[in-house]
Amino acid sequence: MDFKGYTSEKKQLIDQYLNTLLPEANNVPVIIEAMRYSLSAGGKRLRPILALMACDLFKGDPDEVMPFACSIEMIHTYSLIHDDLPAMDNDDLRRGKPTNHKVFGEGFAILAGDALLNYAFELVLEKISENPRPEYIKAAQAIGNAAGISGMIGGQCIDLYYENKEINVELLKTMHNMKTGALISAALYTGAVIAGAAEKDLNNIRRLGSLLGLAFQITDDILDVEGSLEKMGKATHKDQSHRKSNFISFYGLERSKAIAKDLIEEAKAILLEYKDDGSHLIALADYILTRDH
Amino acid sequence: MDFKGYTSEKKQLIDQYLNTLLPEANNVPVIIEAMRYSLSAGGKRLRPILALMACDLFKGDPDEVMPFACSIEMIHTYSLIHDDLPAMDNDDLRRGKPTNHKVFGEGFAILAGDALLNYAFELVLEKISENPRPEYIKAAQAIGNAAGISGMIGGQCIDLYYENKEINVELLKTMHNMKTGALISAALYTGAVIAGAAEKDLNNIRRLGSLLGLAFQITDDILDVEGSLEKMGKATHKDQSHRKSNFISFYGLERSKAIAKDLIEEAKAILLEYKDDGSHLIALADYILTRDH
Repeated sequence: MDFKGYTSEKKQLIDQYLNTLLPEANNVPVIIEAMRYSLSAGGKRLRPILALMACDLFKGDPDEVMPFACSIEMIHTYSLIHDDLPAMDNDDLRRGKPTNHKVFGEGFAILAGDALLNYAFELVLEKISENPRPEYIKAAQAIGNAAGISGMIGGQCIDLYYENKEINVELLKTMHNMKTGALISAALYTGAVIAGAAEKDLNNIRRLGSLLGLAFQITDDILDVEGSLEKMGKATHKDQSHRKSNFISFYGLERSKAIAKDLIEEAKAILLEYKDDGSHLIALADYILTRDH
Repeated sequence: MDFKGYTSEKKQLIDQYLNTLLPEANNVPVIIEAMRYSLSAGGKRLRPILALMACDLFKGDPDEVMPFACSIEMIHTYSLIHDDLPAMDNDDLRRGKPTNHKVFGEGFAILAGDALLNYAFELVLEKISENPRPEYIKAAQAIGNAAGISGMIGGQCIDLYYENKEINVELLKTMHNMKTGALISAALYTGAVIAGAAEKDLNNIRRLGSLLGLAFQITDDILDVEGSLEKMGKATHKDQSHRKSNFISFYGLERSKAIAKDLIEEAKAILLEYKDDGSHLIALADYILTRDH
């Protein structure tokens, strides 16, 4: 199957599974609707797709990986809801739609984020309870660590703290690795470890995650400069208006593009080891470099 | 040992354990300090004490229960940080100190809450990884469910939605059971299940949790009317100023006190079955009724 067909099939499976997870409603006002709103707001599903790709690479069972993959998407979604809040990035648009707090108010946006984070862990604990495989527990731990103060939340703190302050390029890379790279890496790791990948392969996957994560963030910075609201579905030129340093402010546009290209080349070199089995991940690496939104 | 000595010893052990959990600092600005600020802001540690008491009741190993008990305290603490935010209850004081967002700003308060919730799950997953006992997994699931949309977050949503709106007394009870009762029940259940309590005993413990949780909430409403800022360390008469219905507005002060007393009597009747082993929990039930803060 070609890359486009492969990823759109995966995306459909992910959307279906996410849709079955939450009840239609419970006896509580607003919350399910607010969670669903952001969860089904047209995300690319990059992280769960990466988990399923890593699972396929090591011939695992995608049905086993799916709940863990979707728990990562829930965590990613909660982080966007909280990032968009007035006290953080104060964004009105996300994926071409009003942000969660614009629709449901700040209080419910905070609670919807909390609820998605909590639900992600409820989901993986349910799977562990049904079948306490060590690989499930390893995946759940990797997800938890990647989402916490040593990962995504930590990166978000660096981001918040250095708004309007000087940051050096090393710390900028650390921030991106924590804020974006950690969860992308955890997605790949989750798919691979549940599929039963060997330790050598898990090391490859970790390295791959770190390369793709950083490349993804650099292309995000590039799109913030070159992209348009129409394609991105969110405000662009934000770093400039928030006075945030990014890769472009350190290296300029051309050098940043060259760095991203080098990272993707290195990622593809790792994947060549897996011959044909790595072809979809190679195509995804190319997509990260050439995407326009 | 008398009740006061017993609980102050437990509280000390809990404070010590909580203190060792977080690193002194990591390479991330503010976050550890903000987490520690609220975690060590003089909480009564009611939930972890209940977990340790239930563990003692069934002759379990408190060292095994401690991480789970403290994960519950972290979840409780995050919920207070988020509840106090301007978009929620907008409180400036908590336990006699400025609230988290007053000290660290709203952005970091949101992140400190997120981080405590995430860390709670990292902690229990670490313990499950070290020893995947079914009882650990059951405790972790109970904590997750009690904290989520069917428990604490759900109760918080009802609370937020019905501010300035009519609520009926059934829904008020549901709200309290979800917002406060669920996590108190989970604390008792966690201690009991890890201690190896039998199914019959776990049912008793669930009933006990629900009774103590509701009684605790009614006495909270009573203290909101009768208490003072000096003793409570937070603003009182809040329900009136926020136009929230509570037990007092439905039943009046005297009837509310009688209801709380009945609940505590029923809780104590369950505990009598355990003879001397239940004495500390009986004393705690009495404390819930007679506390002044």
